[in-house]
Amino acid sequence: MSRVLGQRCARQLLPRARAAAGRRTYAAAAAPAFDWQDPLSSKSLLTEEEQAISETAERYCQEQLAPRVLQAYRDENYDKKILEEMGELGLLGSSIEGYGCAGVSTVAGGLITRAVERVDSGYRSGMSVQSSLVMGGIHEFGSEELKEKYLPGMAKGKILGAFGLTEPNHGSDPGSMETTAKPHPTKEGYYSLSGSKTWITNSPISDVLLVWAKLAETGKIRGFLVDRKDCPAGTLETPAIKNKNGLRASITGMIHLDNCPVPKEHMFPEVEGLRGPFSCLNSARYGIALGVMGALEDCIDRARTYSLERKQFKGNPLAKYQLVQKKLADAATDAAYGTLAAIQVGKLKDQGLATPEMISMVKRQNCDRALHHARVLQEIFGGNAVSDEYGIGRHVANLYVTQTYEGQSDIHSLILGRAITGIQAFV
Amino acid sequence: MSRVLGQRCARQLLPRARAAAGRRTYAAAAAPAFDWQDPLSSKSLLTEEEQAISETAERYCQEQLAPRVLQAYRDENYDKKILEEMGELGLLGSSIEGYGCAGVSTVAGGLITRAVERVDSGYRSGMSVQSSLVMGGIHEFGSEELKEKYLPGMAKGKILGAFGLTEPNHGSDPGSMETTAKPHPTKEGYYSLSGSKTWITNSPISDVLLVWAKLAETGKIRGFLVDRKDCPAGTLETPAIKNKNGLRASITGMIHLDNCPVPKEHMFPEVEGLRGPFSCLNSARYGIALGVMGALEDCIDRARTYSLERKQFKGNPLAKYQLVQKKLADAATDAAYGTLAAIQVGKLKDQGLATPEMISMVKRQNCDRALHHARVLQEIFGGNAVSDEYGIGRHVANLYVTQTYEGQSDIHSLILGRAITGIQAFV
Amino acid sequence: MSRVLGQRCARQLLPRARAAAGRRTYAAAAAPAFDWQDPLSSKSLLTEEEQAISETAERYCQEQLAPRVLQAYRDENYDKKILEEMGELGLLGSSIEGYGCAGVSTVAGGLITRAVERVDSGYRSGMSVQSSLVMGGIHEFGSEELKEKYLPGMAKGKILGAFGLTEPNHGSDPGSMETTAKPHPTKEGYYSLSGSKTWITNSPISDVLLVWAKLAETGKIRGFLVDRKDCPAGTLETPAIKNKNGLRASITGMIHLDNCPVPKEHMFPEVEGLRGPFSCLNSARYGIALGVMGALEDCIDRARTYSLERKQFKGNPLAKYQLVQKKLADAATDAAYGTLAAIQVGKLKDQGLATPEMISMVKRQNCDRALHHARVLQEIFGGNAVSDEYGIGRHVANLYVTQTYEGQSDIHSLILGRAITGIQAFV
Amino acid sequence: MSRVLGQRCARQLLPRARAAAGRRTYAAAAAPAFDWQDPLSSKSLLTEEEQAISETAERYCQEQLAPRVLQAYRDENYDKKILEEMGELGLLGSSIEGYGCAGVSTVAGGLITRAVERVDSGYRSGMSVQSSLVMGGIHEFGSEELKEKYLPGMAKGKILGAFGLTEPNHGSDPGSMETTAKPHPTKEGYYSLSGSKTWITNSPISDVLLVWAKLAETGKIRGFLVDRKDCPAGTLETPAIKNKNGLRASITGMIHLDNCPVPKEHMFPEVEGLRGPFSCLNSARYGIALGVMGALEDCIDRARTYSLERKQFKGNPLAKYQLVQKKLADAATDAAYGTLAAIQVGKLKDQGLATPEMISMVKRQNCDRALHHARVLQEIFGGNAVSDEYGIGRHVANLYVTQTYEGQSDIHSLILGRAITGIQAFV
Repeated sequence: MSRVLGQRCARQLLPRARAAAGRRTYAAAAAPAFDWQDPLSSKSLLTEEEQAISETAERYCQEQLAPRVLQAYRDENYDKKILEEMGELGLLGSSIEGYGCAGVSTVAGGLITRAVERVDSGYRSGMSVQSSLVMGGIHEFGSEELKEKYLPGMAKGKILGAFGLTEPNHGSDPGSMETTAKPHPTKEGYYSLSGSKTWITNSPISDVLLVWAKLAETGKIRGFLVDRKDCPAGTLETPAIKNKNGLRASITGMIHLDNCPVPKEHMFPEVEGLRGPFSCLNSARYGIALGVMGALEDCIDRARTYSLERKQFKGNPLAKYQLVQKKLADAATDAAYGTLAAIQVGKLKDQGLATPEMISMVKRQNCDRALHHARVLQEIFGGNAVSDEYGIGRHVANLYVTQTYEGQSDIHSLILGRAITGIQAFV
Repeated sequence: MSRVLGQRCARQLLPRARAAAGRRTYAAAAAPAFDWQDPLSSKSLLTEEEQAISETAERYCQEQLAPRVLQAYRDENYDKKILEEMGELGLLGSSIEGYGCAGVSTVAGGLITRAVERVDSGYRSGMSVQSSLVMGGIHEFGSEELKEKYLPGMAKGKILGAFGLTEPNHGSDPGSMETTAKPHPTKEGYYSLSGSKTWITNSPISDVLLVWAKLAETGKIRGFLVDRKDCPAGTLETPAIKNKNGLRASITGMIHLDNCPVPKEHMFPEVEGLRGPFSCLNSARYGIALGVMGALEDCIDRARTYSLERKQFKGNPLAKYQLVQKKLADAATDAAYGTLAAIQVGKLKDQGLATPEMISMVKRQNCDRALHHARVLQEIFGGNAVSDEYGIGRHVANLYVTQTYEGQSDIHSLILGRAITGIQAFV
Repeated sequence: MSRVLGQRCARQLLPRARAAAGRRTYAAAAAPAFDWQDPLSSKSLLTEEEQAISETAERYCQEQLAPRVLQAYRDENYDKKILEEMGELGLLGSSIEGYGCAGVSTVAGGLITRAVERVDSGYRSGMSVQSSLVMGGIHEFGSEELKEKYLPGMAKGKILGAFGLTEPNHGSDPGSMETTAKPHPTKEGYYSLSGSKTWITNSPISDVLLVWAKLAETGKIRGFLVDRKDCPAGTLETPAIKNKNGLRASITGMIHLDNCPVPKEHMFPEVEGLRGPFSCLNSARYGIALGVMGALEDCIDRARTYSLERKQFKGNPLAKYQLVQKKLADAATDAAYGTLAAIQVGKLKDQGLATPEMISMVKRQNCDRALHHARVLQEIFGGNAVSDEYGIGRHVANLYVTQTYEGQSDIHSLILGRAITGIQAFV
Repeated sequence: MSRVLGQRCARQLLPRARAAAGRRTYAAAAAPAFDWQDPLSSKSLLTEEEQAISETAERYCQEQLAPRVLQAYRDENYDKKILEEMGELGLLGSSIEGYGCAGVSTVAGGLITRAVERVDSGYRSGMSVQSSLVMGGIHEFGSEELKEKYLPGMAKGKILGAFGLTEPNHGSDPGSMETTAKPHPTKEGYYSLSGSKTWITNSPISDVLLVWAKLAETGKIRGFLVDRKDCPAGTLETPAIKNKNGLRASITGMIHLDNCPVPKEHMFPEVEGLRGPFSCLNSARYGIALGVMGALEDCIDRARTYSLERKQFKGNPLAKYQLVQKKLADAATDAAYGTLAAIQVGKLKDQGLATPEMISMVKRQNCDRALHHARVLQEIFGGNAVSDEYGIGRHVANLYVTQTYEGQSDIHSLILGRAITGIQAFV
């Protein structure tokens, strides 16, 4: 385990009372017993380090994030301090080696996203952008100078990143982007960037923006690291998008670039075309695939508890009804299956054996099934689910978003269809 | 047609420009052409009066309600004036004969709810409570004095009603209610009511509350009309429930009764047991069955428009993609089927041939299918659906509630199952 | 009512004992009671004549067809006498006026197909080909001579027809057909037809074959009535296709034409292109839409009976279990909805207000839902459904075929999608 | 690897041409490439021995079983020689150590069932009964004498077994069985068994029958090994059940015992109650969970091939259509997930960490999803699927049976629901 995360784990692994009854426990059972929280014993596939990291992350999330999400979601407010807290724990950019990062396995990184998304997909989104999209992008494609300049601060959550790919008219088809970079007309050694990006998580609070733009000279897409503090007034605007239906505990905005000067060294040196952004997205998608399992598991936990406590018709708990039990069984099954599949892909990724289609598969399926079951489990709450205090409505709203971003579900179907048939059907 | 509504229709049927392109038009086509807005020509089943009423209601809703719903939903605010406006148009208690009500057919009443719910299920809920649950209840079970005292003002939207059946611990099983009425210890000729009701639409703004309580002397459920202005301070509280996940454009609250004195003449004279509230609910459920078809049709309209305008991959509109077309075809089919079924049940109701199970069937199926398709159509918007300005996310959130209130979907399944098999399976 | 069918009805309507307990009864109930066999009272939409025809057909089917279907299905055998029996009852070409046909309404014709398909989709297929595809085609497009020559014998079931459109390489896309007609090289006044058709119901037993072929001179599709008894040896072969997975109680084959001479007067005089065959298919599809509701209703009946008789766990009938009741409720709902929709389209058809897309809608939806629910209801039988004596497995296998023929379900989706969006997405 | 299976593997692993193009290949890919036949690289979880066993079994099945299944299914005929062939290859009772069995891992055993079920679920059923239910039962619960007397011959496929648990009136609830064993009235040292069992795979051809019966003295269920050759005439009948809708390539029958004498030593010495049969079923269910993935994979393979070869609309292969690609993507995803889950449970089983609920989960989910997708993929074939030569209809019919036997899907839902909630809902 990395030093950073390792120290934390050691410190936090001291014996302590579990916060609330009914919460997950992590002790390994000696005799084989069915654990509804991990029905197919996915934990048996984890290294000790991965288990320890998972516990650390779960503990932080339950103790520090869970208590503030209800109000944050109501107010559509994202507390920047969260990224600092995560940074202190070593949770940011955790699978990067060096530069102050923890250097843990892909699966361990996924377990962190799962812990965060068990609380809220918006919190996980804020972290994914920082960790996978921006830090991951800099680490994979940036020059050594850029890495040294930005990664350590980002790992601590002191420098916040945003990832600018999607444009207002080009959601599923980023290859048609309109943002351009051309040699700056007046500033030597600078490019001038112009264009608009939308649905950009963290953009309003970001310090550094990884913006993808077409280089005028070549027509090829290149990555640019835009440092807000160096942008002249009026060249960079990042207005927030408000009144969202979901992910309200994360902050989302646009990026408007108007002849914004960016030093040539802030262009990623080699990567051209969609390979760059797609590689970043691949990492983020992996995190989503395991992350949404956390949200689904929280829905199961909440629905199970509710069904045991709520009594109807002669004092029977709802849990006694067949129609309720089937909902729980179906959800638990897909949670267990999706977790195994995501762990498998993570292991393959660390061995260099994962393909983008594998990630399309687990991202699509896990998001689809998490959304589906969250909705079905919500029915167990009847009208009470309308109150936001039961939490499940928030997961339902959030999971819709996870299904559509970083590759809408149907698009991933067609990616898989192409891989299976060899024929492209995007039209 | 009734005088009240008839005059309005006449006035509003003068030729006028249609507000917005792409909106529904109402002229009958001469040659048989497929109308995606009414695929199986349900209009051919309506009388001229019913068509005229529908047009009047649609026009009011599109012109007066549609422009304010976005902000109302954001702010969780319900404008009481809406009920007054509806009252002026004769839309309240429309199927009641006399007492200032329009006296139109059950189907006509359903077409009004459809028009309102095409804008928002919350607005329809506010109207349903006034029209079906309270006015309907008074008309069916109240004494002549109560009818004359309350119905005309309610029909005008000057007196607002609420319907208190559901209790915090008894959602699907109202027979276990705990609210009681007993002879008032000090006020002669009064009952004293105590207990709590929850999830009561309009309760915070209501003038008169139809409360169902167990009469201590008999243990039987009876209906009481509680007039707020006559309640001593501290005996009636109706706090609002805030931070709802859906139906945010309607106002919802609780009812707390603490030894509240209610004159004996305000108890419904004859009806005992659950027959009273179930009869009221039956009327309201009918309105929901046709109402949610309006919400679904609005989702289809919005998704269709979006799919024609949004271009991806070589400039093709989304509407060109098979996966999108199938979503639209599936939704249009269920909208057409559900509309026919609801019209059929309305006609049977006016002939005295409808049974509660028929209403369970159309309420359940239409809510389930509307919710399902709204969610599927939402996928067409991709990430953009997260912005509340596209409207579809609001319908998705609202329709969840319609599926759970006035009989959660599974409960209606079991009512149908009992009718089919003769065996009760609630327990 | 037509003379032909009218007499039968009169005769058969004499009082008689109902064959088997639990079978459908047809007496109108005085008080409103839920009828699980007709949950939304579709019967109230029928004329007295339509009800009488329905009863006659149901009686024949239950008494004459039901007893032989099990063995016929096992042996993959179709008894030609069935068409003669149907002819005697006036059930063939029933919506044609004159030529010895009954001339009843479209809905009445659909009620006949429903009665037949309640027993078996294969029996209904055999009848549909005779009635809708061939007799309907001759009546709509044939010369007066052809009508007089063939329709009376076909109405009696003495002359059997087959409909040759589908080719081995062109299922969903008949416009690409390869069968051609050119002036016969040696026989004056004759065309010479060559090509192959497949999946042709009744072809091996047919006397007259309505074959669609491209006229060499124009490249346009035309209809030809091929009279088997006039074809020289070796010019017409109609081998049976055996070992089918479904519709085994109907007979299916190919048509091979090898320079088959057909008199010029046997070409339909005016209709060109796909309008001809599509018009025939439209009528047949309508019959399927109402027909499959019969099969579904039979599945509901069988599953309900089984669930009441079969006891498991402490002697409880399966019908007591929530998971079973939900299956029954879901199926009954879609049966009721589909029936209403099909009746509505039938009424519109007789008023000249039906469009092909309406028929696509009810054909697709009713076949899809019938198949879906038949499969779900089959689960109630557990392992016992594997025995063919329970009948439901036969319906399941048959209904798969109805979903794919006369327009596979996805193709109808795209027809509807095109009608909704104005954009074609077949390619 | 065991000697028995090892030798075969060595012999068969010699280089040889693959039978047919498009068939599975087994060479490990060097660079990460998406393999539609194993999308999440489940192979990476297998030991070399497991891979070798899988290849051996696949080769036998494709070369020896695949060519005969079509005719066997048509004729409802099961060739006893198949079990002998399997025995020669070491495929029977493969996870038993000693007694002439291969002693391979649980996963290896599952890979064998997958290979067999890729051809036909009926062939797999025939093998499962022999291997898991009877040999497994004898090995786990039989005396040393019984093991030595029967297992070696059974392993060779020379002695055929059947497993008698299910009774005509007690499918999902075997605890209510009516078959009894009491001391034989005349033969010292014998029990006398009477009762009937049904849906017994292999019963008509079995030499030895493991029959579960209630011991009269205790009322407890006990296991008896009935050796047919020792049964007096008239005490044991095993008539075949014909005209099945599915699994027609396996043979199924009843068992009638009429005062059948069974030596006391043929009663399993210690196990009492349902623990015995449930333990056997657990092993068989595990085999089904991985087995049905083979059937599903074969459906994917067939549908993919068909969609690439079949052209419609301007010569496009069906594989180009989005609606087709989505069907393939969905099926491939569930096949990949189900395979990983089953492998995980197999590994846990060998470590003593599997619970019956885990097996319920993978049995239920994999059967449900295999059946669902087989049906959806069948739609790609349109009407052609009705011809049995395309094979997919056979899988569809078979998979229905796998969903209902050895625990109907809903029953497993309730087993899982009980494990999740702690509340039993069978009644």
